Amino acid sequence: MSKDPPYIECEGGVTAARGFRAAGLLCGIRKQKKDLALITSDRPAVASAVFTQNAIKAAPLAVTMEQLDRSTRISAVLVNSGNANACTGQQGLADAWAMVRAVASSLHLPESQILVSSTGVIGQYLPMEKVLAGIDQIAPLLGTNGHRDAAEAIMTTDTFRKEAAVQIPIGDATVTIGAMAKGSGMIAPNMATMLGFITTDAVIAQDLLAEAFVRANNHSFNRITVDGDMSTNDMALILANGRAANVPIERGSPDFALFSEALEHLMITLAKMIARDGEGATKLIEVSVTGAHSSAEALQAARAVAESNLVKTAIHGADANWGRIMAALGYSGVPLKGEEVEIAFNGVPILGKQYTILLNEAMAKEELAKETIVVSVNLNGGSFSEKFWTCDLTKDYVHINASYRS
Amino acid sequence: MSKDPPYIECEGGVTAARGFRAAGLLCGIRKQKKDLALITSDRPAVASAVFTQNAIKAAPLAVTMEQLDRSTRISAVLVNSGNANACTGQQGLADAWAMVRAVASSLHLPESQILVSSTGVIGQYLPMEKVLAGIDQIAPLLGTNGHRDAAEAIMTTDTFRKEAAVQIPIGDATVTIGAMAKGSGMIAPNMATMLGFITTDAVIAQDLLAEAFVRANNHSFNRITVDGDMSTNDMALILANGRAANVPIERGSPDFALFSEALEHLMITLAKMIARDGEGATKLIEVSVTGAHSSAEALQAARAVAESNLVKTAIHGADANWGRIMAALGYSGVPLKGEEVEIAFNGVPILGKQYTILLNEAMAKEELAKETIVVSVNLNGGSFSEKFWTCDLTKDYVHINASYRS
Repeated sequence: MSKDPPYIECEGGVTAARGFRAAGLLCGIRKQKKDLALITSDRPAVASAVFTQNAIKAAPLAVTMEQLDRSTRISAVLVNSGNANACTGQQGLADAWAMVRAVASSLHLPESQILVSSTGVIGQYLPMEKVLAGIDQIAPLLGTNGHRDAAEAIMTTDTFRKEAAVQIPIGDATVTIGAMAKGSGMIAPNMATMLGFITTDAVIAQDLLAEAFVRANNHSFNRITVDGDMSTNDMALILANGRAANVPIERGSPDFALFSEALEHLMITLAKMIARDGEGATKLIEVSVTGAHSSAEALQAARAVAESNLVKTAIHGADANWGRIMAALGYSGVPLKGEEVEIAFNGVPILGKQYTILLNEAMAKEELAKETIVVSVNLNGGSFSEKFWTCDLTKDYVHINASYRS
Repeated sequence: MSKDPPYIECEGGVTAARGFRAAGLLCGIRKQKKDLALITSDRPAVASAVFTQNAIKAAPLAVTMEQLDRSTRISAVLVNSGNANACTGQQGLADAWAMVRAVASSLHLPESQILVSSTGVIGQYLPMEKVLAGIDQIAPLLGTNGHRDAAEAIMTTDTFRKEAAVQIPIGDATVTIGAMAKGSGMIAPNMATMLGFITTDAVIAQDLLAEAFVRANNHSFNRITVDGDMSTNDMALILANGRAANVPIERGSPDFALFSEALEHLMITLAKMIARDGEGATKLIEVSVTGAHSSAEALQAARAVAESNLVKTAIHGADANWGRIMAALGYSGVPLKGEEVEIAFNGVPILGKQYTILLNEAMAKEELAKETIVVSVNLNGGSFSEKFWTCDLTKDYVHINASYRS
């Protein structure tokens, strides 16, 4: 019997936690869809962030990293879609700083408390007149119901908004953690064109917040792949403003374990949404590797399967081509014995040890036609297991990406 | 002024060199296309081979590796398409050995002089009755004009035969090197579902042949990618039967340099054919990186760009989305300065230093509409350069691979 999770899911996305407001609007970077989002906390929140490992980092990342190096007390985050402000040199940096100053001025806040983030096409300058006018217009729209507009405004080729929120009891208080994110192409492990913004009213020290956040990030946003392409612009950010007035969460306490678990659940929920909404995708694929000699090997094997174009197209076609899974495991670099491997789709056995084919084509076809496919691989080598998420590879992925800038 | 190459191209594929015969036929593994090829030398040839680095190796590879470990004097190679005989356990090994025995018996040769190779679907047993009947039928078809049938019989999703041959003078003799190969999905660097068979009448010692072959392989078959998936079945094999009666090629001699250069040219020719004929491909893409700090870094950067699904879909759509090239360079792991990078398509400058956009959309579109696209990247860091070949990523790739087994 599985016990109930210690958190409950709730509504409200990035404004679910007390003291946070948000807004989103169309300022004109894009033609029709909203392209500018603002999140604010009514008091400075402690912040922690993780960034793309791409050596080419966009201007807003450079600015946000510099801001957080100076101070982790943050009150507002401005995000635009439609233009990544990446590979834009000195002009790009100047534009990102101008956005910081404009938000500070509009909200009457110190510049040190403002972060910026961008996503979209690389190598074009931002239309700053439109962006600055948008910043003027967005402040009056801020509200506790603004989470939907904000989540919409950060979407690029995403087909649905990605929001989630959870609540946990900490002492007598209820702590809420809310979030929004965007995908959906250029998604590779270790962050990709993805942005994630998490807000919580927990009272928690910055170092503890960072510890929980980095770990949750490694188990969520760092375990998704759409196309293996890592972006120049990714970041995930968490803000904790203390408005829940809980007893402070202490290192090593049950409260910290609970907070960490809820945060990880929230971020995995968003990560799976991103994988499911990969460009052109029709299915969420969870690759679950068990029986590995170490966590690292389990992850490496799962990632190789999740990144295989051939596995992803076969699953798209509901073709139980397990040979491609074996091939991917074989080139993953993980030491393994082929004759020990067992494979199942959604719990239906496909391959047994000694290459025993258990595949029932009709049953496999039925499972692979579903919208969520769990590919289970047991290496039967050790006792470690890990998961990785991806989506199927479709003609629409090609269609979308053959003319992205048009 | 560039000087003429020291080799001349000629007809005849894998039977261009003296003493080699070949044949191809349909034995019934597949429904309509030829599926069985045989290459023979009229005297035992010295052999050298390279194999997939996939940990899961198909049965015929295990058999061929074992044969070559015992003796490198080879007279015949049997190849089937339509079935990879991979992940087939003890039965698969028994079948591969049965193929060796049947060829030996049919050609009245020692079993030690026979190699086997397979390509096709993974995880199904070979229809041995059909294969053995095919071996009986193929021997009488062997001929010096059999190169076309053989090259056809090893094709899987290839859309055209891949053959080439060159001749060089060695002393008073003319040495011929001929070859055939197949692609076209599951093509990753370091061999993939590709097979390559090279035959030469040169007199050359086995260790020198192996040295030239491994080096040429590293500059050709190991530098192509279609989808990043590495197969369980790849091998490339060279046979040298000495029928040209040239003065033996000596280590460090001009003759060895000439032989090596001709062999590398031949194998690069085939490698480019494989990349151009990648599943669903409409274009050959050559990624040429210059200005790197080392050969290894040049290759790593070129490979990252060549493997990027986003770069490959953009080029498919004739979209000069150079930002995706920058992003791929950024995550390649090669240390670089973004503002130093220059990019050109077919020699037409797209990006200059300091992120100066030189892109003329109309001109870029015209270049990208061509069937061969050279993406030149100058890192402006050091003096090393390397090339990598791939193809565009299309809806047809998805179509082909969503229903490969059907």
